[in-house]
Amino acid sequence: MNDLKSRAAQIQEQAHKMNKEVFNQASYEKIHQQRNDLQMSSPKLATLEDAIRKSGLKDGMTISFHHHFRGGDKVVNLVVGKLAEMGFKNLHLAASSLSDVHAPLIDHIRNGVITKISTSGLRGTLAKEISKGLMEEPVVFRSHGGRGSAIASGDLHIDVAFLGASSSDPLGNACGYSRSENAKSICGSLGYALPDARYADKVVILTDDLVAYPNTPNSISERDVDYVVEVDSVGDSSKIASGAIRDTKNPRDILLAQLAAKVIVNSGYFKNGFSIQTGSGGASLAAVKYLRQSMIDRDIKASFALGGITAHMVKLHEEGLIGRLIDVQSFDKVAAESLKNNPMHKEVSANEYASADEPGSAVHYLDIVILSALEADVNFNVNVLVGSDGIIRGAIGGHPDTAADSALSIIVCPLLRGRIPCIVDEVTTLITPGKSVDVIVTEYGIAVNPGRPELAEALKAAGLNIVDINWLRDKALSIIGTPAPLPFGDKVVGVVMNRDGSVLDVIKNIED
Amino acid sequence: MNDLKSRAAQIQEQAHKMNKEVFNQASYEKIHQQRNDLQMSSPKLATLEDAIRKSGLKDGMTISFHHHFRGGDKVVNLVVGKLAEMGFKNLHLAASSLSDVHAPLIDHIRNGVITKISTSGLRGTLAKEISKGLMEEPVVFRSHGGRGSAIASGDLHIDVAFLGASSSDPLGNACGYSRSENAKSICGSLGYALPDARYADKVVILTDDLVAYPNTPNSISERDVDYVVEVDSVGDSSKIASGAIRDTKNPRDILLAQLAAKVIVNSGYFKNGFSIQTGSGGASLAAVKYLRQSMIDRDIKASFALGGITAHMVKLHEEGLIGRLIDVQSFDKVAAESLKNNPMHKEVSANEYASADEPGSAVHYLDIVILSALEADVNFNVNVLVGSDGIIRGAIGGHPDTAADSALSIIVCPLLRGRIPCIVDEVTTLITPGKSVDVIVTEYGIAVNPGRPELAEALKAAGLNIVDINWLRDKALSIIGTPAPLPFGDKVVGVVMNRDGSVLDVIKNIED
Repeated sequence: MNDLKSRAAQIQEQAHKMNKEVFNQASYEKIHQQRNDLQMSSPKLATLEDAIRKSGLKDGMTISFHHHFRGGDKVVNLVVGKLAEMGFKNLHLAASSLSDVHAPLIDHIRNGVITKISTSGLRGTLAKEISKGLMEEPVVFRSHGGRGSAIASGDLHIDVAFLGASSSDPLGNACGYSRSENAKSICGSLGYALPDARYADKVVILTDDLVAYPNTPNSISERDVDYVVEVDSVGDSSKIASGAIRDTKNPRDILLAQLAAKVIVNSGYFKNGFSIQTGSGGASLAAVKYLRQSMIDRDIKASFALGGITAHMVKLHEEGLIGRLIDVQSFDKVAAESLKNNPMHKEVSANEYASADEPGSAVHYLDIVILSALEADVNFNVNVLVGSDGIIRGAIGGHPDTAADSALSIIVCPLLRGRIPCIVDEVTTLITPGKSVDVIVTEYGIAVNPGRPELAEALKAAGLNIVDINWLRDKALSIIGTPAPLPFGDKVVGVVMNRDGSVLDVIKNIED
Repeated sequence: MNDLKSRAAQIQEQAHKMNKEVFNQASYEKIHQQRNDLQMSSPKLATLEDAIRKSGLKDGMTISFHHHFRGGDKVVNLVVGKLAEMGFKNLHLAASSLSDVHAPLIDHIRNGVITKISTSGLRGTLAKEISKGLMEEPVVFRSHGGRGSAIASGDLHIDVAFLGASSSDPLGNACGYSRSENAKSICGSLGYALPDARYADKVVILTDDLVAYPNTPNSISERDVDYVVEVDSVGDSSKIASGAIRDTKNPRDILLAQLAAKVIVNSGYFKNGFSIQTGSGGASLAAVKYLRQSMIDRDIKASFALGGITAHMVKLHEEGLIGRLIDVQSFDKVAAESLKNNPMHKEVSANEYASADEPGSAVHYLDIVILSALEADVNFNVNVLVGSDGIIRGAIGGHPDTAADSALSIIVCPLLRGRIPCIVDEVTTLITPGKSVDVIVTEYGIAVNPGRPELAEALKAAGLNIVDINWLRDKALSIIGTPAPLPFGDKVVGVVMNRDGSVLDVIKNIED
């Protein structure tokens, strides 16, 4: 300020003269020549190749993507294909998740374009090849909340983010839906892209509906955007409710969903103002359907539903049974449309959703979460990432985040899937520690964590079939016998990170 | 990553053992004891005194405030009173603006509690005392866009922001309205508080309606909030449409507004998809009323209205004449209610609104702005800060931001205010350089910047009374005679910053 004062004193005599000259013709022309069709023009508009060049991306840097189109995503393959064509090597691909549609990455890994991957999950051929040892560097797996924290803290530094959007204006005001008549896609919330938009050094928006400024309301602000690229398609919206988040018609899933609803109703947490989340997986998504009648019968309303928002949640909200929808990821098109049209359906970033280091993240206020599992073990540990055959086939998602911070975490998990036991001695890979898990619901009985005797009593009193977790393990073994040990090799193909950035577990390669 | 690989290798053997121990009873208790009334509890809740202590505020640091309640603000006096009581000295008060309600600051300045001020404007007794030399340090005046840039770049570093909100949950999800039945206040957009929320080291929310989590939709996210303080009142909403933004009934203002509307209609910029902003001041705010019929008659719709949003703008939007409302500051309660209820009425930060260094800020896409003036001079320079008596009595606001970046800037200004000439040889203080100003509308005629001959021709052809700016100056002098020079002293009491952070002009003390 003192410096300012002396500067001010120096210029005070010249100031009026300097600035009060009659308008400057040159500056006029500069201003006005840019006015032609301004609403559709912008210095940020570029081809993909130009945007990549201008971004300053170099070999060895980190690029990032979101997975809001899930199985329908078209951005990762498009961008990495272009990077390969342009000769980039040794890139670190940091996606919020990857799925079976990303099998073309296998070639890019073999060719040295991609040499590191960070993600929440892997599926399909890519997952299989990586499980067998495709990459030299282990894949780093983080939960959604953990990824948000890592990006915010700088642990995961993103050089260039490539973010698909269903609409953007030429300045980069972008969202996961479009209000224009040319709308081609919709994915709803861009919650997992928001940390990238805020913290990446450079942000490229790819959109299949370039609309006139101002594209508001929007989720990503032009403040955070460097380049806008128009493309044919960012994703196939018919596939956003694919994979792990299809609506179930499986009778066993329906039974598990009904049992989970009964656990909730009798848990002591089912009271006015409660909050709830349902993770991916048919049974957990469906549970809220069976909770609905109890809410009506007892005149109990939820304050909010969190997380992957579904058509079921939207219905309950529209009926007045759920006050707010807090949406980090729209699990189907009904949810995506609701986010577009309803201000009480709120988009949040991964950090606002589930980061452990933010006292305010929504999971800290979450009462009840229903989650699925590939395996659970006798210590209530859960695995949602690696199949019982040792091959990666899932995603961490918000599993450990919500289990740790909710008041009541319920795992729905069949005792057996075909010839595969799901309640085991020790999970193949540790994703959610048993101390975060309260109840495991199977079709053979419900196990309650011994740390929650009062909960077991309440559920018994309600007539639910409460069993010992060891009994469930024994039951599975009695039906199918003890499985042979998995042929793991010595190569570390994956590292599972805790929410706080420490290492939780490692995944070894699986041999043929 | 290599480091990660070796860490992973080290821990791989212990990992399963370490993490797979049976749940930990102690951590269970820790989790569950916090569940009681969680929606109304939070580690961030504090008394004002506690919040100040915990924030780490020290003598010499910078505190900040927003002015969305304008004349009704109760936060600045409350907080500075508490800081005085606690013994703080030598603080830098960086407000988005200050008004006549902040006269109690005079004592705090005399007592050394506040020794520096940064603001967009000053009014009333405080302004008068500062004009007379109350402070040792000159007050730093910035435009709204300039303040946003300075905060984002670190030029204006805020240690602790104290931000009033009409509702907040215990985690700090806050906004300028409330959806609860206990709502006490409403100010609408918190656009000028958003840079503070994002960039200040510590953020304290003060609210007069503490609501249950989750308070969504919200404008400030809990991510950016450190403490939440419940207070009796953050502001008197009946006064948000006070001062410079009252609806006018003055016949001369109405004439000026009608003339401004005619200028717009005949300017060449009045076509489908145009965008518009009206600054504070009765005539400029009213102009849009007179534009309405022309929009209907010619079937012309605006793409967006920007800035201080008014009831007039809301009406045109609801009639379908304006596509979007982009609101950095709600100029009246109708606008504030609209922001609360209508998703097409979008809140933006000062940076998204008007920062020069952001290619995407909305002013870059603004076609037409109508602004007022205390004085304009023969070089089209405008002063909106210092009265013709040499006393500070206004605010820079977004004046230079919008004038510079719009395609057509129109100043509405009477030739005389009582015995005071408003078209002068040289403005007392330079706020908006003449090269940014296209048209000056007075009740005696309309002057067009000589840099825009085509515009003058178009307006003449439409039958408007186009006059030379020097003729207007002469006319004013012929009516009231040449005013005596102002008795300025040698002390610099204010420094006016350019949008880019350079010094534009200085204000000297005025003697009695």
